[in-house]
Amino acid sequence: MTSFSTLRVNADRMQDTFIHLALFGATGDGGVSRVTFSEAHLAARKWFRAEIENSGFEFHTDGAGNHSAVLPVSVIARAAARSNPQHDKEIASQKTLATTSRLLLGSHLDSVPNGGRFDGALGVIAALEVLRTVKENGIKLKVNLEAIDFTDEEGTLVGLLGSAALAGRLHPEALKNPRGGRQNLVEGLNRAGLSEEDIFKAARPKKTLAGYLELHIEQGKRLERAGINIGVISAIVGIRSYRLSFIGRADHAGSTLMTDRADASLGASAFTLAARDLVVEDFPNCVVNVGKMEFTPGAFNIVPARVDLSLEFRSPDENEFERLDAALMVCAKEQAARFGLELETEFFEKHVPNLMSAEIQKVFADSCDDLKLTHTSLASGAIHDGQSFDGICPIGMIFVPSLNGASHAPREFTKWDDCVNGANILLQTALRLAT
Amino acid sequence: MTSFSTLRVNADRMQDTFIHLALFGATGDGGVSRVTFSEAHLAARKWFRAEIENSGFEFHTDGAGNHSAVLPVSVIARAAARSNPQHDKEIASQKTLATTSRLLLGSHLDSVPNGGRFDGALGVIAALEVLRTVKENGIKLKVNLEAIDFTDEEGTLVGLLGSAALAGRLHPEALKNPRGGRQNLVEGLNRAGLSEEDIFKAARPKKTLAGYLELHIEQGKRLERAGINIGVISAIVGIRSYRLSFIGRADHAGSTLMTDRADASLGASAFTLAARDLVVEDFPNCVVNVGKMEFTPGAFNIVPARVDLSLEFRSPDENEFERLDAALMVCAKEQAARFGLELETEFFEKHVPNLMSAEIQKVFADSCDDLKLTHTSLASGAIHDGQSFDGICPIGMIFVPSLNGASHAPREFTKWDDCVNGANILLQTALRLAT
Repeated sequence: MTSFSTLRVNADRMQDTFIHLALFGATGDGGVSRVTFSEAHLAARKWFRAEIENSGFEFHTDGAGNHSAVLPVSVIARAAARSNPQHDKEIASQKTLATTSRLLLGSHLDSVPNGGRFDGALGVIAALEVLRTVKENGIKLKVNLEAIDFTDEEGTLVGLLGSAALAGRLHPEALKNPRGGRQNLVEGLNRAGLSEEDIFKAARPKKTLAGYLELHIEQGKRLERAGINIGVISAIVGIRSYRLSFIGRADHAGSTLMTDRADASLGASAFTLAARDLVVEDFPNCVVNVGKMEFTPGAFNIVPARVDLSLEFRSPDENEFERLDAALMVCAKEQAARFGLELETEFFEKHVPNLMSAEIQKVFADSCDDLKLTHTSLASGAIHDGQSFDGICPIGMIFVPSLNGASHAPREFTKWDDCVNGANILLQTALRLAT
Repeated sequence: MTSFSTLRVNADRMQDTFIHLALFGATGDGGVSRVTFSEAHLAARKWFRAEIENSGFEFHTDGAGNHSAVLPVSVIARAAARSNPQHDKEIASQKTLATTSRLLLGSHLDSVPNGGRFDGALGVIAALEVLRTVKENGIKLKVNLEAIDFTDEEGTLVGLLGSAALAGRLHPEALKNPRGGRQNLVEGLNRAGLSEEDIFKAARPKKTLAGYLELHIEQGKRLERAGINIGVISAIVGIRSYRLSFIGRADHAGSTLMTDRADASLGASAFTLAARDLVVEDFPNCVVNVGKMEFTPGAFNIVPARVDLSLEFRSPDENEFERLDAALMVCAKEQAARFGLELETEFFEKHVPNLMSAEIQKVFADSCDDLKLTHTSLASGAIHDGQSFDGICPIGMIFVPSLNGASHAPREFTKWDDCVNGANILLQTALRLAT
């Protein structure tokens, strides 16, 4: 195993590929708009397929539109055999595994509207570069390697569409009322030459999935602020969201005494402030967001009868999540009661917290140590394709620093050295896991 | 003057008229929808014109669509002369005044959408009943009496349209971008057979306006709670409104630490609570309302970059208004700064406070005392047609109790005895002012 430890990705080749990709959907201000199944996204995928095939990998796609470069053990073995004939006899014994089990390395080529060049793209390009490096060095692996671009991670249409479909976790319900709108989904699938029933055919048998590794930018400031090279992800936070409705009474905003009002804005406002204080003081590993309030009737001169508040909160730990959820609901009830309001709550479960494989975290950390890169354990506040594989195969994820924590914006930036560091840790970890 | 003090309106006739009016635009739940120039509104006006003409009054209309019953001094005098021939010789000396000066009694027949039966309607029906009572009793007055239904008090189209036009105060600007939308105004005028240029022809010479009296429901709980019959209005509050924009930064609501956010919702929420406390504690004669907040971008998973807040506040006193305005702006700046936000303010001046005539308030109070009705001095938190006459002629206004303070809703209700009390005070006050 230690024989691989000096292997590094080709930083210049990876940068050429990265820069080329950034041309698809380039917005002229350093960003990209490459939303799922847009012309820019489909063009980027067409180019990615050519890159895969021109590099001598098997190209694989599925009903969900995931695009992959596959490096089968047999190919690796054959390449290795050419330089190292004694490997030949091992090929036969690995054939069964070779045709069934794959270690996936990936991310996504789609972006949010007016997003950045790094989110998703870095992980896909690094995965391809890892396969190129492994292939050209004729490394003998025990599992196939697959560099995969998952469809619609960002949720222009559904969110985690490709990874959930591949993991066999996509609910048919998710296609009926998708967050991007039903019409956009239907039209997008049509543009991509896909059908709804085919999406579910992307599901792979669990036994074929040896693991999933992803390199991603942090989308936050923790690594940059601490001056640390690599974040080894311990968990992807869970997300819960509610619509909280504070319900009072519409009254004339001139003739109704202040003390006679049941003003929904007061409960919603007090909750917004109290929820933040609660999280900052008692749940430092969690975050909370009031992303929207809608006022009814919403006029200058009418006391608000109702405020519908969009609440989302995240935690990396299920027990803490339960406690935070309960505390927020108590807080909402208290603030509603304080101003004589009723409270209605509507729950939208989104994602449970996903723990990353302890073994893979250890390998990531060892790889960092070997490469003399500083590392720290982090929870991911954002959702990622990896969580689709929770309970199906071991998941591992690393972050590299984001300048000023910027993400989902053209100013998103990660120094190229950091990108290369991430790709090398991905390479080393894949090698250690796959041998 | 004391000879009139036993005169009372005909409560049953007034109720018959009131009930008939409530059929126009009746919503089936006790309310009415009679928005300006709707079919229901135009039908109610047609009926009102017939009531005027069938009662033997002169019908008068103008370019703004105001509808009036006019009881000229000459007619009163003639009617009086029939029963009291010695009045004949006084007619000639009053002719000049008779053709120029009028004491207006009125309100409006238009309603808000799904409004109540009493708001506006009571004032118009009571004014007509006052004229009927004066006419049938042959009372000799020094000024003409006019019972008037003003166009569009509620502002479905413009707000105070008819009274402002009659007072010569309507700004041409008000028709260019009216609150109900330009298209609705054009279509409404068309349905009513009116034109924009004719509206301005409704302006009357100041010298023809002897005064304006209005009976209205309170639209609040003060009289009901205090168990008082009549509210004598001291002032109609002024209204100021602002759009306050709290501006932070959109960030990923999962990966951005709570302490790294510039969350616009926090400034807007803290201001909403602080503004209420400020008014309740330091400005007990004033009211404040945050009627709406608009969040940008307004997603569950994005920290709000901007909240646009609709602020309105009212005061019956100009000096207090200035102090409240300044205090609210300081409060907004402080709350924005507290959360690292920028603040933008956009001012919309609406109405200055209007003082009611001290003399008329005294006559209202004396009339109440004579009729053994309890009374109190109140500021009106709502706007009314009377304020169009500020500085043009003396204005007087009284309120009668609203059940539970309800208004602008089908549940709006005033006991009929209270309505009759109000009409009798209107009658007595008109008699005392006009003789």
